[in-house]
Amino acid sequence: MKVGIINVTGYTGVELARLLSQHPEVKLVSVTGRSAAGKKLGAVFPHLADLKLTIEAELGEVDLAFSAMPHKESAPEVIPLLNKGIKVVDISADFRLKEASEYKQWYGFTHPAPKFLKEAIYGLPELYRSKIASAQLVANPGCYPTAAILALAPAVKAKLIEPDIIIDSKSGISGAGRSLSPITHYAEANEDTSAYALEGHRHLPEIVQELRLLSGGKSLAVSFVPHLVPMTRGILTTCYAKLASGKNEKQLRELYRDFYKDEPFVRVVDSPPHTKHTMGSNFCLVYPTIDQRAGRLIVISCLDNLIKGGSGQAVQNMNLMLGLPETTGLEAPAVYP
Amino acid sequence: MKVGIINVTGYTGVELARLLSQHPEVKLVSVTGRSAAGKKLGAVFPHLADLKLTIEAELGEVDLAFSAMPHKESAPEVIPLLNKGIKVVDISADFRLKEASEYKQWYGFTHPAPKFLKEAIYGLPELYRSKIASAQLVANPGCYPTAAILALAPAVKAKLIEPDIIIDSKSGISGAGRSLSPITHYAEANEDTSAYALEGHRHLPEIVQELRLLSGGKSLAVSFVPHLVPMTRGILTTCYAKLASGKNEKQLRELYRDFYKDEPFVRVVDSPPHTKHTMGSNFCLVYPTIDQRAGRLIVISCLDNLIKGGSGQAVQNMNLMLGLPETTGLEAPAVYP
Amino acid sequence: MKVGIINVTGYTGVELARLLSQHPEVKLVSVTGRSAAGKKLGAVFPHLADLKLTIEAELGEVDLAFSAMPHKESAPEVIPLLNKGIKVVDISADFRLKEASEYKQWYGFTHPAPKFLKEAIYGLPELYRSKIASAQLVANPGCYPTAAILALAPAVKAKLIEPDIIIDSKSGISGAGRSLSPITHYAEANEDTSAYALEGHRHLPEIVQELRLLSGGKSLAVSFVPHLVPMTRGILTTCYAKLASGKNEKQLRELYRDFYKDEPFVRVVDSPPHTKHTMGSNFCLVYPTIDQRAGRLIVISCLDNLIKGGSGQAVQNMNLMLGLPETTGLEAPAVYP
Amino acid sequence: MKVGIINVTGYTGVELARLLSQHPEVKLVSVTGRSAAGKKLGAVFPHLADLKLTIEAELGEVDLAFSAMPHKESAPEVIPLLNKGIKVVDISADFRLKEASEYKQWYGFTHPAPKFLKEAIYGLPELYRSKIASAQLVANPGCYPTAAILALAPAVKAKLIEPDIIIDSKSGISGAGRSLSPITHYAEANEDTSAYALEGHRHLPEIVQELRLLSGGKSLAVSFVPHLVPMTRGILTTCYAKLASGKNEKQLRELYRDFYKDEPFVRVVDSPPHTKHTMGSNFCLVYPTIDQRAGRLIVISCLDNLIKGGSGQAVQNMNLMLGLPETTGLEAPAVYP
Repeated sequence: MKVGIINVTGYTGVELARLLSQHPEVKLVSVTGRSAAGKKLGAVFPHLADLKLTIEAELGEVDLAFSAMPHKESAPEVIPLLNKGIKVVDISADFRLKEASEYKQWYGFTHPAPKFLKEAIYGLPELYRSKIASAQLVANPGCYPTAAILALAPAVKAKLIEPDIIIDSKSGISGAGRSLSPITHYAEANEDTSAYALEGHRHLPEIVQELRLLSGGKSLAVSFVPHLVPMTRGILTTCYAKLASGKNEKQLRELYRDFYKDEPFVRVVDSPPHTKHTMGSNFCLVYPTIDQRAGRLIVISCLDNLIKGGSGQAVQNMNLMLGLPETTGLEAPAVYP
Repeated sequence: MKVGIINVTGYTGVELARLLSQHPEVKLVSVTGRSAAGKKLGAVFPHLADLKLTIEAELGEVDLAFSAMPHKESAPEVIPLLNKGIKVVDISADFRLKEASEYKQWYGFTHPAPKFLKEAIYGLPELYRSKIASAQLVANPGCYPTAAILALAPAVKAKLIEPDIIIDSKSGISGAGRSLSPITHYAEANEDTSAYALEGHRHLPEIVQELRLLSGGKSLAVSFVPHLVPMTRGILTTCYAKLASGKNEKQLRELYRDFYKDEPFVRVVDSPPHTKHTMGSNFCLVYPTIDQRAGRLIVISCLDNLIKGGSGQAVQNMNLMLGLPETTGLEAPAVYP
Repeated sequence: MKVGIINVTGYTGVELARLLSQHPEVKLVSVTGRSAAGKKLGAVFPHLADLKLTIEAELGEVDLAFSAMPHKESAPEVIPLLNKGIKVVDISADFRLKEASEYKQWYGFTHPAPKFLKEAIYGLPELYRSKIASAQLVANPGCYPTAAILALAPAVKAKLIEPDIIIDSKSGISGAGRSLSPITHYAEANEDTSAYALEGHRHLPEIVQELRLLSGGKSLAVSFVPHLVPMTRGILTTCYAKLASGKNEKQLRELYRDFYKDEPFVRVVDSPPHTKHTMGSNFCLVYPTIDQRAGRLIVISCLDNLIKGGSGQAVQNMNLMLGLPETTGLEAPAVYP
Repeated sequence: MKVGIINVTGYTGVELARLLSQHPEVKLVSVTGRSAAGKKLGAVFPHLADLKLTIEAELGEVDLAFSAMPHKESAPEVIPLLNKGIKVVDISADFRLKEASEYKQWYGFTHPAPKFLKEAIYGLPELYRSKIASAQLVANPGCYPTAAILALAPAVKAKLIEPDIIIDSKSGISGAGRSLSPITHYAEANEDTSAYALEGHRHLPEIVQELRLLSGGKSLAVSFVPHLVPMTRGILTTCYAKLASGKNEKQLRELYRDFYKDEPFVRVVDSPPHTKHTMGSNFCLVYPTIDQRAGRLIVISCLDNLIKGGSGQAVQNMNLMLGLPETTGLEAPAVYP
């Protein structure tokens, strides 16, 4: 099976190439880039020299394409492929939201093909496994939403909490991408922690969309505050909500374990997890607990933002779409320490 | 005026020595340590070689003493000094809580001198300036409480929020002290973010005590989750609470500015602050904002955990206690980048 | 084929377990530890929970054993295994030096079984591939020696340089191990660079031993200065020596390429390499160049100290000893960024 | 006394503003910038808000000006000031080299005013204190040259070593400036160490110029290899040269101590120094030792690249030029940890 990557030169694109280079069942045959077109992949990314690929301007013939384009620029690349019947995993946000109007509001553009928003499946296998398996277009979730939704899904689904939720996320700097900016300049980002996007981060609407679906359509108040912390990879998310039910700690742990009992990449753990224990892997660790004093559920989740929060999840979706075992090429444990 | 430091060998002790070495009105004449007694201060801490002090087993004669002992071990050092009439700034937790019973509950020991809990003034100059000025014993706040209380005081005092508060703090690793532990081993802490003390951190009771006093004695539900992020210095705290009043963003900002208008070390800022902009300084930056979608107040504060969150605040308290201008020796701006 | 690890709880031990968990041809069946004996491996190292191993006090039955014990403590564990005819890769220094007297001088103990020093093969496949294939005991090189010898071997062998060599190495902190020490305390090691062991690092004698063998037994003056830089993994080594021959840059590059032309894990690169491009992989990058002004050869090499500088090389040796393709289980490219 | 900074918006400019803000004898009255002209200094650099300065397009009236412009762009700003009789400390390279032709070779431009190259004094107070005191134009040394020259000056002057020197430097990332580049992008620079400029770094000619003057004009072969290590501030330099004299360790230490005995900012230390012990201070630590096995002098020096390696040294020069005590405003010890 032949696969290709549109825009291999960002961090999700290059991480996807790394993962696919180790995948035993598919062959990465084509990668594109804009400014780097014509260059050897190994000249831009020395660790991928063995792939012996050249960055192209146009995608070659493939059975399944990944788009790692930025939002707004991805849809115009993806739509022609869809019309040709090619399967697509879109890592951008362009097909994640069900309501076309939200693209205007949150991303500032008019969606060019709302009909595909209906067809697209939100690529969180833990929620949509069977739909992904038969989809032509999978909209791969953002890194923050993956951590937040996996942390909250069991509680929201089981109506354990009040519909008023706080999501406080701490992300490594690679999440801000490979484009240069003062925010990601080493001497500014190192030895610094800060919050950003308090006026509303673009990942909020997909978090709300999915949590609402899980809650049976109930309206939810969600505050989401992303932070940057000085490390390359990893997201740790701390979620807070008032308990609506009398569950105790043990019952809570059981409910979470039960929800994720067949999941190959989600682990409900017994102590607060560390991003380091997911680095380089496709795992998401989830730790639910109860703050008895305040009657509050607290759930902490963590993952590698470029893998389970991006390219690893894209491979997981591809596996499902191509009928391969879901874990193929993704079994590597974290690189510790 | 002669001052001394009990236990100079921890990070708050040595930072205090650094700040006092630059103070124009007092002279650091005596520093103690346990294992290091007999060594030159400059042999243990090369940057302080110019002080030409020797670490002693017993404190020499001073007008004011700082105790940088760990909790439980500080009170027995401090009590004899108090009985001799010497002024003391205690950086440990041993005199911060008003209720002796809380020491049993949170710190696991019976307080040896509850009468001093009544006399001790909680050393947050922004709340207790005049009492500090006439106190013999000042209990210097913890690093987390300083950031949290300064973030929330204006809102709690003005009854702007519901009595249900979430405090999500991100701390640099120096906050865990100079004693070795797996948590602070470089290869474990670097490139890692994690939460800890979800069962209840020891700084929670002083946060609750002070916020309750500010709220006029109302009962408060407070969830406090500390996190470690991979940097040496700095705390960033993100606070969340439902708005109880119809204040808008502009009014909120004004209320905060008004509350802190005469404060030399608290700055209400117009955009989310960075810990980097406080590193090496005694400043605390506070950014209040409203999440309109969720009807929630969000306040972000940050400071250098070893300065405004520790030794700098101790010097600020000393200045007040000795009748010196409050900012003496503390005017240095942050070391950026 | 069944393999086991003696002392899995240090960083080389646990990294070996990670690599072996992904190896398709051998099965890790037994791991030992001292203080952690009786614990689940996954309780100590969450990323290895899937191995479902328990840390034992004694090694079980295996075809090949790795010892990841500290020096001096390794030999007593290894000797009984050798006497039973079991193959061993010893990651400690206990069998690297040919002269028993050097153990007294550099490691401070009398070697318990000098006869094995003769039998042991120094486990650098690039120099001793065929001997390793038939060895019972392989002495896996240290992290610094691997980087230094691979940088210098082609030049020394070809008599390109004067016998007076400077090796300036920069290592990530994981090289100092998992045991706690002030040197590896986060707030001390972070944002710091320093040199150490200027009186003579223990890795010096094996560097000298191997370079002398390459030079045909000529006496060499070697200065080796290791440095700690604030990152978890990686060694970058910069080597300097006066040119003894008239080779130009192009000829130099060709000589190096020729020397390593069949090596699966050594890459002669065209620009100064970055440790980041080896992180998580078994590759060593080598960049030779000439400082025309000073008539000097400069060679820069880098690798992941825990993989090609430790556990990955041990697996490479195991593959050779067991008649497996040398790259089995080691093909993963670097984890970038 | 009124002073001003041309181009306050780079890291040396803003660090200079921080140091001058604490200087008791001069007043910073004017700061310029290009893209940021018109903005409040505190809007760009929050930690300097108290200075209440506005970034200007043109420098106001001052007694002494600092130029923190990039090389080639600095001379055209500085020359008109010199012609007006204003004292200048130029932090760029534009007046450091004595030979105008070297600007063509190393910096790629024809020097616009070679006559000032003769008048300019190289601003290393440890070598040129009295000349600096009476100079109109001081050319502030680069960060690498300061560390290298202070490490080697006593040995070169005393003819202790052969005229063949290796300088291996490790620099924090702030040395690469505030302009964005892939090299300084956080996810690229973090957890990475690399060498650069092996074809010849621009700081080499000033190192050679000054060492040659110290050696009495003898020709010297100098290899200089700069490296980037993942920390914000600090340079550690390791220098190597064959011993030409029979001095032992103790005599060596004495010779260095004697050379620097009256220097307020150079400390000859007894163990390998750490950059952390200079961070935020104007100190340079120097550790000379002998590698007996190889008959080699090794000297390690370290400093804060933005202070003694830049803006602090500029203030030290200013103090001398204005007849102030040399240490004024520079006494702050390092910020540790």
